[in-house]
Amino acid sequence: MVGDRGELGIGMVGYAFMGRAHSQAWRTVGRFFDLPFTPRMAAICGRDQALVAAAADRLGWAAWETDWKRLVERDDVDLVDVCTPGSSHAEISIAALETGKHVLCEKPLANTVDEARAMAAAADRAAANGLRAMVGFNFRRVPAVALAHQLIAAGRLGTIRHVRGAYLGSHMLDPESPLVWRLDAAQAGSGALGDLGAHAIDLAQHLAGDRIAGVSALTETFVRERPLADGSGARGQVTVDDAALFIARFAGGALGSFEATRFAAGHTEGLRVEVNGELGSIVWELGALNQLRLFDATEEPATQGFRTIQVTRADHPYAGAWWPDGHTIGYEHTFTHEVRDLLQAIADGRDPAPSFAEGLQVQEVLDAVQRSAASGAGWTQVGG
Amino acid sequence: MVGDRGELGIGMVGYAFMGRAHSQAWRTVGRFFDLPFTPRMAAICGRDQALVAAAADRLGWAAWETDWKRLVERDDVDLVDVCTPGSSHAEISIAALETGKHVLCEKPLANTVDEARAMAAAADRAAANGLRAMVGFNFRRVPAVALAHQLIAAGRLGTIRHVRGAYLGSHMLDPESPLVWRLDAAQAGSGALGDLGAHAIDLAQHLAGDRIAGVSALTETFVRERPLADGSGARGQVTVDDAALFIARFAGGALGSFEATRFAAGHTEGLRVEVNGELGSIVWELGALNQLRLFDATEEPATQGFRTIQVTRADHPYAGAWWPDGHTIGYEHTFTHEVRDLLQAIADGRDPAPSFAEGLQVQEVLDAVQRSAASGAGWTQVGG
Amino acid sequence: MVGDRGELGIGMVGYAFMGRAHSQAWRTVGRFFDLPFTPRMAAICGRDQALVAAAADRLGWAAWETDWKRLVERDDVDLVDVCTPGSSHAEISIAALETGKHVLCEKPLANTVDEARAMAAAADRAAANGLRAMVGFNFRRVPAVALAHQLIAAGRLGTIRHVRGAYLGSHMLDPESPLVWRLDAAQAGSGALGDLGAHAIDLAQHLAGDRIAGVSALTETFVRERPLADGSGARGQVTVDDAALFIARFAGGALGSFEATRFAAGHTEGLRVEVNGELGSIVWELGALNQLRLFDATEEPATQGFRTIQVTRADHPYAGAWWPDGHTIGYEHTFTHEVRDLLQAIADGRDPAPSFAEGLQVQEVLDAVQRSAASGAGWTQVGG
Amino acid sequence: MVGDRGELGIGMVGYAFMGRAHSQAWRTVGRFFDLPFTPRMAAICGRDQALVAAAADRLGWAAWETDWKRLVERDDVDLVDVCTPGSSHAEISIAALETGKHVLCEKPLANTVDEARAMAAAADRAAANGLRAMVGFNFRRVPAVALAHQLIAAGRLGTIRHVRGAYLGSHMLDPESPLVWRLDAAQAGSGALGDLGAHAIDLAQHLAGDRIAGVSALTETFVRERPLADGSGARGQVTVDDAALFIARFAGGALGSFEATRFAAGHTEGLRVEVNGELGSIVWELGALNQLRLFDATEEPATQGFRTIQVTRADHPYAGAWWPDGHTIGYEHTFTHEVRDLLQAIADGRDPAPSFAEGLQVQEVLDAVQRSAASGAGWTQVGG
Repeated sequence: MVGDRGELGIGMVGYAFMGRAHSQAWRTVGRFFDLPFTPRMAAICGRDQALVAAAADRLGWAAWETDWKRLVERDDVDLVDVCTPGSSHAEISIAALETGKHVLCEKPLANTVDEARAMAAAADRAAANGLRAMVGFNFRRVPAVALAHQLIAAGRLGTIRHVRGAYLGSHMLDPESPLVWRLDAAQAGSGALGDLGAHAIDLAQHLAGDRIAGVSALTETFVRERPLADGSGARGQVTVDDAALFIARFAGGALGSFEATRFAAGHTEGLRVEVNGELGSIVWELGALNQLRLFDATEEPATQGFRTIQVTRADHPYAGAWWPDGHTIGYEHTFTHEVRDLLQAIADGRDPAPSFAEGLQVQEVLDAVQRSAASGAGWTQVGG
Repeated sequence: MVGDRGELGIGMVGYAFMGRAHSQAWRTVGRFFDLPFTPRMAAICGRDQALVAAAADRLGWAAWETDWKRLVERDDVDLVDVCTPGSSHAEISIAALETGKHVLCEKPLANTVDEARAMAAAADRAAANGLRAMVGFNFRRVPAVALAHQLIAAGRLGTIRHVRGAYLGSHMLDPESPLVWRLDAAQAGSGALGDLGAHAIDLAQHLAGDRIAGVSALTETFVRERPLADGSGARGQVTVDDAALFIARFAGGALGSFEATRFAAGHTEGLRVEVNGELGSIVWELGALNQLRLFDATEEPATQGFRTIQVTRADHPYAGAWWPDGHTIGYEHTFTHEVRDLLQAIADGRDPAPSFAEGLQVQEVLDAVQRSAASGAGWTQVGG
Repeated sequence: MVGDRGELGIGMVGYAFMGRAHSQAWRTVGRFFDLPFTPRMAAICGRDQALVAAAADRLGWAAWETDWKRLVERDDVDLVDVCTPGSSHAEISIAALETGKHVLCEKPLANTVDEARAMAAAADRAAANGLRAMVGFNFRRVPAVALAHQLIAAGRLGTIRHVRGAYLGSHMLDPESPLVWRLDAAQAGSGALGDLGAHAIDLAQHLAGDRIAGVSALTETFVRERPLADGSGARGQVTVDDAALFIARFAGGALGSFEATRFAAGHTEGLRVEVNGELGSIVWELGALNQLRLFDATEEPATQGFRTIQVTRADHPYAGAWWPDGHTIGYEHTFTHEVRDLLQAIADGRDPAPSFAEGLQVQEVLDAVQRSAASGAGWTQVGG
Repeated sequence: MVGDRGELGIGMVGYAFMGRAHSQAWRTVGRFFDLPFTPRMAAICGRDQALVAAAADRLGWAAWETDWKRLVERDDVDLVDVCTPGSSHAEISIAALETGKHVLCEKPLANTVDEARAMAAAADRAAANGLRAMVGFNFRRVPAVALAHQLIAAGRLGTIRHVRGAYLGSHMLDPESPLVWRLDAAQAGSGALGDLGAHAIDLAQHLAGDRIAGVSALTETFVRERPLADGSGARGQVTVDDAALFIARFAGGALGSFEATRFAAGHTEGLRVEVNGELGSIVWELGALNQLRLFDATEEPATQGFRTIQVTRADHPYAGAWWPDGHTIGYEHTFTHEVRDLLQAIADGRDPAPSFAEGLQVQEVLDAVQRSAASGAGWTQVGG
C-alpha cells in the first residue's frame, strides 16, 4: 500500500514530551536523510480536543483524533507512533499491528512482562504480513554510541569484563514537586527504573553484545507522599521507586553495575555507559553526547590513555547527514535517526532494532530487578 | 505588507552549509517558539539550475531562482536571507533593502570595511521604512552565551580585566586538501580571520560589553599552494591567512588575546571565549555548547571554584522552548534562535542585534588585524 | 616515656611499597608540621638481611632487624608501624601493643574479622595504658577529602540519599602478569576487595558519617591461573577476587553502590567517592587528588552547577603546611598527614581516627561482601 | 674536591617559598634516586639571624649564615643554591662561581639582560674549571613535560605550527592585597612577566625545540597603588606589570601566543603549554601535573582524539623512582628532579640544562616583551 504513493502516513498517539520529540523527527528526517518513503504527518491523537487540536497545529500534523482507536483505523495512517504512558503501550500497539500498521512504541515497551510478551507475539504475527515494530530506545542512535557499537562488535575491546550503566537525575529532589503520572505505578509501571534505568540497561546490553542473566537489586522511594498535581493542596502516595540499583552477571561472564535515580543532586539526564574489556574500554555520557571516550590497551604503553573522539565526522554513523566535522547535534537528533532506521527497515522488509523482542527482554530485566528488590535484594534470574 | 496575512515570505540566496542550516531554522522555528509572523519558505536562489531545484526540494523551499536579483524582487519574498560568500554580501543585501525587504546576512558582514560601511548606511536608510537588517553572528544565541551575557551585563564579573577569544580548527592541516573558495581572498576576503576569528571577536565584544580599540597582529599562510578543487591536478595559490592571532586593548581598559587558525591539530570548531573580571570569570566553549563555566570570586573563599552550569533549564534563555532540563541542543539551534529574534525585532519595529552597524564594527577590527599584520605586527587602531 | 626526650622512636616492619611511603612520611612530617614529638626513625625490620640493610640505608632508618619480635622489643622504639601483608597484621600489632608500643597498622586491618576483633580488643586494653592504635586509611587525609568531610559534617548536603564508592584499576589485565602475594588469599585475605575496595568503603562511610548495614555482592576471578613470580615458568592458582561489586544500604537509609576491580582497562588507581544528599553532592577522585567537586542545590537555580574547588589554600585542611595556593601535593602526602595526626592523638591522649575499632567495622563489611558473594549474591547483614 | 668524600655540600641563600621547596628536594632526592654524590645540607643563609636560625632547624640545614658572602666561602659548601629575589641573583651566582662553587639559581636568571649576560659569561669561565651552573626552570622536570619533550624531539608532531603558553593566576585580584617584594621592580625586575611568564616561555621554547625571534607585547598594571606590607596603612606604588601578553614568531616559523597575569579570577597556578604540529598536538597543564594530552593526526581518522596519558608509569621519565603506576606526585617533586639532574650533570662533567646561557636567552625574550610594551606594542626582535 505504500509503494504506490512513495509516502508513508504517520499517526501519533500522545503530544507531550515524547510526542514533541517524535514530531520533530518526522518533520526533519527527510530534509537530511535519503529515505525509501516520505513520511507524511497524517494525524495526531489525544484525549483533550482543544489541546490536541492546538498540538496538531503547533507540531505540524494534518489532522487530529481524540480516540486512539480511530487514529489506528485511519486509511491515511500506515505507521502508528505510540508516545503514551506505558500503561497503554500494549493495547494501542497490538491493535495497530492487528489493523495492519507498522508501529514505533516508546520505551519501556510495557509496564509488565506479560504485556511485553503479548506485544512481542503480536509483532511476530504481524511480521508475517510485512509489518514492522520497533521500540524506541533512542540512545542507540547517538553517533557516538553507534560508533562504540561498531568498535566493540569488531572485537576492539576483546572479552568483556565489566559493564556499568547509570542514569542519574535529580528530578524529584524537591519533596514538594508534584505527583505527576510518572510517579503513579498504574500508569508508569515503575519509577526511575523504567523511565531511566531501562535506557541504561538497553544501551549496556546493546554495546556489550550480551544479555543480563541475573541481578540483585535495591529500590527505594525516598519521598513517599507528594502534593497532587491538581494544585488542590491534597497529597497522594508515590507508588514507584525513586531510585533503583543492581549488580548483575551477563550471560557471557561479564559483571554489571547499574543505577537509576531521580535523587542525585547535581545530575540532570546523567546517562552513562562504560564497558571494560581485556583489550580496552569505552565510556559514553549523554552530557557529552557528541563524544566517545576510548582506551586501547594494545597501543604503545607509554602513550596509552583514554582519548576523546569528537563523533562528528562524515565517516561516523549518522553524522555525515548533518553538519561539517565538529558541529554538534543534540538530544532530538536521536529520534530523527530512529525513524530513519525504522523507515529503512520497513523498506528492506526486515525487523528493525530494537525489535519488540528486544524490548521484551529489557522488560524481563526490569521485572527481575523489581522481584529482587521485593525479595530483599536476593539473587534473581532474568526471565526466571 | 506583512500584517495582513500574518506570514512573512522568506527568500534565501545560497544552499551550501549555511543555506542548509538556515533552512532548518526557518522550517523549525515556528514549531517551538511563539512568533509574531509565520515564516513561509518562499524561494531559494542559486546559479546552477539543477542544483538549486534539487536543493529547493530537499530543503523545503516552495520555488527557486537562478538570479538573486529576481529573488529579491519577488512579491512573495519579504525577507532576504543572504548565505553566499562574503564577496556578494554587500550587493545582495543593499539591493534587497532598497527593494523593501528585510535582510539577514551571514557573517562576516562583508569582505571590506568599505562594503560594510555601505551596508550599514543602507540599513540605516531602510530602517526609516520599517525594514530590519541583521548580521548572523549566530553564537550569541547559544543559551549558555546568552546566560553569560546576562550575568556580565548584571555586573557579576565587575570591571573586566581580560578577554580571550579563540577559534581553533584543523580544516587545512592536510596540505593536499583542495583550494576551496574559502581559500580565495577575492571570494572570502580573509581566511581563518574572517571565517573563524570574526565569531570570536563578536562574542568577546558582545560579552565584555566593550569594543576593541587597537591591536597588534600576526597572520600566516602555512601552505601557500594547493590542488585546485576541479580535480585537474593543477595547483593554485592560497590567498588568505591560515592563521591569525592578535593582542588587543579594549576601550574600557581590558586586555584581549585572540587567535583563529585552521592548523591546530586535534581541534575541530574550537571556539572558546573567556572573560575575567575583578569579581569573577566566565568560560564558554562551543565543544560543550550547552554548558557555561562560572567562577564567582565573591563567594566563601574555601569553597570557591569554577562551576559548570548545564544551561538547559526552562528559566535559561531560549532553553524553555525545547526540551526538559538536561536535554541538550546542538549547533543548528543557534540559527533557529537567530531567526526567532529577527522576526521579533521586525514585529517590534526595532533594530535587531547584531545590527549591520555592529557587523561594520567587527569588520573594522578584522581590517585593523590585517593592517597590523601587513605592517609587521605594529600597533594599529581599530577604525583608524 | 616519651615526654622526657621530646622524641618518639619509630620502628617499621616492611620496606616494600608501603614501607617506602611511610618512610617518606616519617622523614618529612617534622619539616612541614609543628609536632608534639620529633619522630626518630629508629629501626626497620625485614626478613632478608641484605635487603633490609640496604632499605635502612636508602630509606634513612638508623638500624635494622630481621625478626619483627626483636623490633617490637627495642627500647628505642616507641611506635611500631606495620607495613606487612595482612596475614601478619594481627600478630605484630597485638604484640606491639602488649609490649607497650603505639601502633600504626596498614589497611585493611586484618585478613579476617576474628583477627580484626582481637586487634580492636588489644587496642582497647592498650588504651588504658595510654597507647594508641591507628589503621592506615590514608585517603581520609587528602585535603579535598578532609574538606568534604567538614562540609558534610556541617550539614551542607542534608540527608544523604546515595553513596558511590569505586576503586578501579587495571593491574591484572595482562593474564601473564605473575602470581604476586596480593593474589594469594593466605597472605592477602582477599583481592581487589581488601586491597582497593577497603579504601572506598572506609571513605564512603567516613564521608557519609554512616555505616553500611547490609550488602548483596558479586565477586569474580577472571584469570584463575598465573605464572609463579619465581620465574620458573610454573603456574599457580589465583585464590583471591579480581573484582568485587556490591549494593548496600546504610544504617541511616542511604543507598550505596560499590566496586573494586583490577580489570578495568584504562583505569589506574581510579578511586572515586560520590555522596548525594537532599541539599547537594560531592565528588572526589584520586586522579584529581587536589580537587573537590561540590554541587549546592540551595543556590540560585539558574547558576547552579558542580564546581571544582582547588583544595590548596592555606585555610584548607593540611594544605597550609605545604605550598602557596595552587601548588599541588601528591599521593605520598596522605601518609605525612596520617602520621602527623597520629602523633597529635598520642600527645592529646585520645584515640586516633580511624581507630582499630573503625578498622574492625570495615573488616565486617568486607566479610559481609565475601559471605554474600559466596551465597550467590544474597542479602547479607554486616556483622550478622 | 668532591670525589674524595662522595658528598657534595650544599649552601642555600634564601628560605622563603623557594628555599623551602629546594630544601625538600635536597633532603629527599637521595632517598628515591641513585646519585653520583650524596648532597649534604651544609648551610643556609638569610639576613635575619633569628629567622634564619629557625629556618635551618625547621628545614634541616646543619649551619646558618647571615651574610651570603660568608656562605659562598665556606669550605663545606660545594654548590650554592640561590633562592633570593632576582635583584641579587647575578651578584651571588657570579661570586659563587668565581669562588669555585657550582650554582643552582632560581628563575628568572636575572632582572636584566646585562646581568644575565654577565652570569652566562661567568658560567662559561667556570665551566673551564669543571663548575656547573643551572637555572631553575623546574617545570621541565615534570614527568609529563619530559615525556612531551621526548615525543616532540622524536618528530611525533612534525613541523610545529602553533605554540601557546599561559600562566594565569589571581594572586593580586584583591586591590587591598599588600605591596610585597614581587610588586617592586627594583627587587623583582618585572611582575607577572618574569614571575609567571618566564616559565611559560621556557617551557614553550624547550618543548618546541625552537626560539622566539620577535614579539609584539602589551603589559598592564591594573592596580597601581597598594597598602605597604608593613601594616602601617600607608600605600606605595606597584612598579611591575600585573599582566603581560604577547604574540610571537619562532625562528622556525611557528606562531606563538603568550600570556601571564595575576588578575585571572578563578585561576591559581594556571600554567599551560600547547604545541600544534602538522602531525599532532600536545597539551600540558600544571593543574593536572601528572597528565599529558596528546593528539596524533596520523592515526585512523574515525577514532582520532586527544588522549589523556597518566604519566606515572615506571617507563615514564622520573616516575619510576617514586610510586607504582597511577600514584601521583606534586609540585615539589619538580625540584627533586631538578637537583637530581644537576648532580648528574656535575658528575658527568657536562653543562646541565637549562644552562645560564638558556636562562640568558629567556631573559632576552622578557626584555623584548618589555621593550615592545614600552613602545606601544610594536614589533620587537628578541636580542635586537
